[in-house]
Amino acid sequence: MAPQYARSLRFRLPPLLFFLQTGFIVVFIFYVDIEQNVQTKQHVFTNYYSEFQDVHVMVILGFGFLATFLVRYSFSGAGFTLLVAAMAVQWAVILNGVESMYHRGKIWINMRSLVVAEMCTASSLIAIGAVLGKTNPDQLLLIALLEISGFVLNGWLLQTFLKVQFLNAIMLLHIFGAFFGLMLSWVLYRQGSEQQHEKEKINRKTGLFSVMGTLFLWMFWPSFNSVLVEVDHLDRGRKLRAVYSTYLALAVSAVTAAGFSVLTSPQGKLNLFHIQRCTLAGGVAIGVAMSAVHLPWVAMTIGFAAALISTLGSRYIKPLMLFAFECHDTCGVLSVHGLPGILGWMVQLLLQIADSDDLTTAVRFAVFHISTLLITLSLSMILGLITGFLLKFNFWRPPPNKKCFDDQNFWEFPHLAVKK
Amino acid sequence: MAPQYARSLRFRLPPLLFFLQTGFIVVFIFYVDIEQNVQTKQHVFTNYYSEFQDVHVMVILGFGFLATFLVRYSFSGAGFTLLVAAMAVQWAVILNGVESMYHRGKIWINMRSLVVAEMCTASSLIAIGAVLGKTNPDQLLLIALLEISGFVLNGWLLQTFLKVQFLNAIMLLHIFGAFFGLMLSWVLYRQGSEQQHEKEKINRKTGLFSVMGTLFLWMFWPSFNSVLVEVDHLDRGRKLRAVYSTYLALAVSAVTAAGFSVLTSPQGKLNLFHIQRCTLAGGVAIGVAMSAVHLPWVAMTIGFAAALISTLGSRYIKPLMLFAFECHDTCGVLSVHGLPGILGWMVQLLLQIADSDDLTTAVRFAVFHISTLLITLSLSMILGLITGFLLKFNFWRPPPNKKCFDDQNFWEFPHLAVKK
Amino acid sequence: MAPQYARSLRFRLPPLLFFLQTGFIVVFIFYVDIEQNVQTKQHVFTNYYSEFQDVHVMVILGFGFLATFLVRYSFSGAGFTLLVAAMAVQWAVILNGVESMYHRGKIWINMRSLVVAEMCTASSLIAIGAVLGKTNPDQLLLIALLEISGFVLNGWLLQTFLKVQFLNAIMLLHIFGAFFGLMLSWVLYRQGSEQQHEKEKINRKTGLFSVMGTLFLWMFWPSFNSVLVEVDHLDRGRKLRAVYSTYLALAVSAVTAAGFSVLTSPQGKLNLFHIQRCTLAGGVAIGVAMSAVHLPWVAMTIGFAAALISTLGSRYIKPLMLFAFECHDTCGVLSVHGLPGILGWMVQLLLQIADSDDLTTAVRFAVFHISTLLITLSLSMILGLITGFLLKFNFWRPPPNKKCFDDQNFWEFPHLAVKK
Repeated sequence: MAPQYARSLRFRLPPLLFFLQTGFIVVFIFYVDIEQNVQTKQHVFTNYYSEFQDVHVMVILGFGFLATFLVRYSFSGAGFTLLVAAMAVQWAVILNGVESMYHRGKIWINMRSLVVAEMCTASSLIAIGAVLGKTNPDQLLLIALLEISGFVLNGWLLQTFLKVQFLNAIMLLHIFGAFFGLMLSWVLYRQGSEQQHEKEKINRKTGLFSVMGTLFLWMFWPSFNSVLVEVDHLDRGRKLRAVYSTYLALAVSAVTAAGFSVLTSPQGKLNLFHIQRCTLAGGVAIGVAMSAVHLPWVAMTIGFAAALISTLGSRYIKPLMLFAFECHDTCGVLSVHGLPGILGWMVQLLLQIADSDDLTTAVRFAVFHISTLLITLSLSMILGLITGFLLKFNFWRPPPNKKCFDDQNFWEFPHLAVKK
Repeated sequence: MAPQYARSLRFRLPPLLFFLQTGFIVVFIFYVDIEQNVQTKQHVFTNYYSEFQDVHVMVILGFGFLATFLVRYSFSGAGFTLLVAAMAVQWAVILNGVESMYHRGKIWINMRSLVVAEMCTASSLIAIGAVLGKTNPDQLLLIALLEISGFVLNGWLLQTFLKVQFLNAIMLLHIFGAFFGLMLSWVLYRQGSEQQHEKEKINRKTGLFSVMGTLFLWMFWPSFNSVLVEVDHLDRGRKLRAVYSTYLALAVSAVTAAGFSVLTSPQGKLNLFHIQRCTLAGGVAIGVAMSAVHLPWVAMTIGFAAALISTLGSRYIKPLMLFAFECHDTCGVLSVHGLPGILGWMVQLLLQIADSDDLTTAVRFAVFHISTLLITLSLSMILGLITGFLLKFNFWRPPPNKKCFDDQNFWEFPHLAVKK
Repeated sequence: MAPQYARSLRFRLPPLLFFLQTGFIVVFIFYVDIEQNVQTKQHVFTNYYSEFQDVHVMVILGFGFLATFLVRYSFSGAGFTLLVAAMAVQWAVILNGVESMYHRGKIWINMRSLVVAEMCTASSLIAIGAVLGKTNPDQLLLIALLEISGFVLNGWLLQTFLKVQFLNAIMLLHIFGAFFGLMLSWVLYRQGSEQQHEKEKINRKTGLFSVMGTLFLWMFWPSFNSVLVEVDHLDRGRKLRAVYSTYLALAVSAVTAAGFSVLTSPQGKLNLFHIQRCTLAGGVAIGVAMSAVHLPWVAMTIGFAAALISTLGSRYIKPLMLFAFECHDTCGVLSVHGLPGILGWMVQLLLQIADSDDLTTAVRFAVFHISTLLITLSLSMILGLITGFLLKFNFWRPPPNKKCFDDQNFWEFPHLAVKK
């Protein structure tokens, strides 16, 4: 019975949960209030609410069920996503409101602040994807909170020092989350992971649940990219353009991912992992590049290129990372979020330069744009490393190698108990 | 072959279905019409429709898939929920329109009447949760129709005699449904149920389907609580406040339920049943208390307390009910809807008293508020008892003890038929 | 290893995908642009967007998961639906814009054009339902593109020569898709299909995934029928009437399908196939008849009749088609879309004639209405036949008889590979 006791979460998870939750409530008591003086409530409500719900569905159901693909880890995939997201949104609301608290004395909750909080949460869930199955819920919670802190800091740096627009800063969530997760996964590397773990595979059932998560992400991604686009008088079509671009990029992305998945397969068949993830690459890339994309075919070409590098990345770079760099990336976040994000960044750079009237503007933009990426990459990787080292201690009692990717570490199975 | 014949639904279910459905159509012919003279159709449409759809998703998919958790009863869980809901909304539209028919000669269908009908349906699905797997579809239909009749009567009594606001009356649906179901379950108790039925358990697959139902409920609960909140000029923020309060209460509820689930577990692990159900307790409690909640931290504290009593209730009160009171509650509706509902009622009382300017108002409010609960509890329990006694007759041919929680009573399995 | 090589998709699927996708992008470069000069963007956005998303969910998740019901074909069911839909919407946008390109020089993308494209896609997914499991993805793609071409041509013919309203023309998508698919299935008939294929069955898991697809279709069908209904000043309530009619027809349809499923069952039990599909028949019929339906009880009666013929069709006509006409209809599209569609057409005819003031109008309408059906049926069946003959060649390498309804033809199973 000793090892069972050792694996108990009782003295680790509840204290952390209650400590954090109580802390958040205390912060809310003193500093957080609901915004009341909005003039046209009903207007704001109908404009934002259904898109907010789409983003909410993506974060909870989309990411949650996408994470159920491992054959013995599906309860944890969906359950921990819910747990982490429920905590992370509260933390993100607080962090994003720090500036408002400084200036106006209060953190205000409104539709927009919740949407932004959900996006920060999405960023942390991407990071978690890289270490899924090899960590316990305590570690996941801390990763999420630290990742969000880093991401909010990154956004603040970019907006303050480089005058990056808010929307462009937040769309870097894919790049930030992916590289944070990669570094984390590199530090937390376990000996023996080169050989595929016997439980690190999908079956017909978990594969299908995971496809469901994919479809929710795929369907609602236009909302994810467009929800924070403001409709202004100079460019009335911006929001709708974001919707259409994302829609088209995702359609092309799905087709392209299927094509390259078959093309690179030794058996000439489709790979479910690619269909689940690489179909989404177009949404990542167009989200980053969005503000410079004006024509539908550009969006489609971005979708094509994103699915191409994402599929090739999943097929060739993922094993390379594992063998050459000892970096085990459970959900393939590098290929699904990291590389397509950088692609989007590059496309934005090229399009902006092409759109510039004179050389000075172009060079100036390029310098700022490159600095943006460098800061984001450095900060995400450094914080990922630090987080990794913090969580490497045995104090956190991660699941032993043999118990990785297994729900039985964390979940009661009452029907099994009955059978005994 | 005799027992197979005995279990056939042919001479029981179709006659009931066709009799009720034909009756409903006849009532619709004479008394029901679509509201035409709404001034600003488009306005009403965009305001209501997407929230209406959210509630619809909660009732059909949320409740439906939450009920798939039993290992051999998942077709029935989802299928009967659809069947009952399809019938119940029609009945609820008729019943809720009786007063309008009396005054205006017609029952009018509009967005609001459908939303109210869906909420009454939700109330009946809660009641059904207590007897799931131990009844046949005839019984479920009659339970739903009687429960809705009682709930509409309850609302009418409260609004007419105690001047309870419509919104407060309808939010008692959790309390009404839960205690109705409990009494029903007590009357329909079967000898031998103290020992867990071999089929009354979850497995990895049904557990995950059920988590999906949970997530749909969890995500769209803000719509459920806010859809009927009218935006008026005195308090423009009411509707948005309902959304934010529910959102925050649910987030805290998910965290807290996970914490207490581990804390009270003998093995120190998470219990899937708690994660599926107790995470929702915050939505129940805040729904009842809503009109008195103005600050976000109050909503969060309610979410914390609701998840606390819900988890402890599922762990300790549910077995107690079974052994001490011979009341077998399949879905744990007492802990998930009943107790959190009463908590919400209590919080509303305390907050309203604290908000009162003078003692007279406070006492007056308290008397009315306590009467509201007492009437709701009495009516729900009495009607639950009566319904139970009506359905106890062997005439209804409930599934025999050995065939409880089993789809094979009710569903053809064509692929098995082929194998023979 | 030879047969494995023969089954490889490498030299067939990727070339087709890349050829088509590149072609579409080229067309988009020259002819397609995003509509910019809409006056009230925000207005259009909030009006359309959430209904557009509902339709999107129906097409991707609804049809996709409805197609997962086969026990060994669920990856293909969901995956190919996504692949086909992603390609088909692009093609439909182009085809639907041909007229605009001719007159205005450009194909414009807006919310409405995407909704119409999704509906054309739904039509092609219905056709595919008849041959699911007996074809490869190349064939499915070609079927979808040809079906959409035919359907758009049909709509153009009806609108140009018979002055059929756009909404009435597009709602024929069920009839067109079903009869196209039936003819296709008849031409592609394989010897030996009279005996049920050992893999052509459902199990508890795939059945439940498929129920999920059903529920998404059932819940969002009111959006599907109402999204293209314009709110005009003559008849402000049209859009809401479409919503309510569809809602009520579906509710009655679910009840009726359950009733007749039990009544016609040899064992007196529910049949999951009927619950999955015949519950939707009311939505099909009311969609076609919609413009003539003004009273809720008429909608309910249509729902009743549609579920009746759909259930009887699934029980008796489906096997008859197989044995008498050698037409194997995997998803039962004749009973689910074809017959209820024709019922809706008939009801519309009767209601319009009853509404007519004089005989001349009535006769005139009848002639036009009957011509509409005849043109649609002829065109769909002729094009279905042609498509069938085009795809019958062995050049397309359809899965051999023994490998029908099996994912292993098309999908890598990495975990199995590991076990070797």
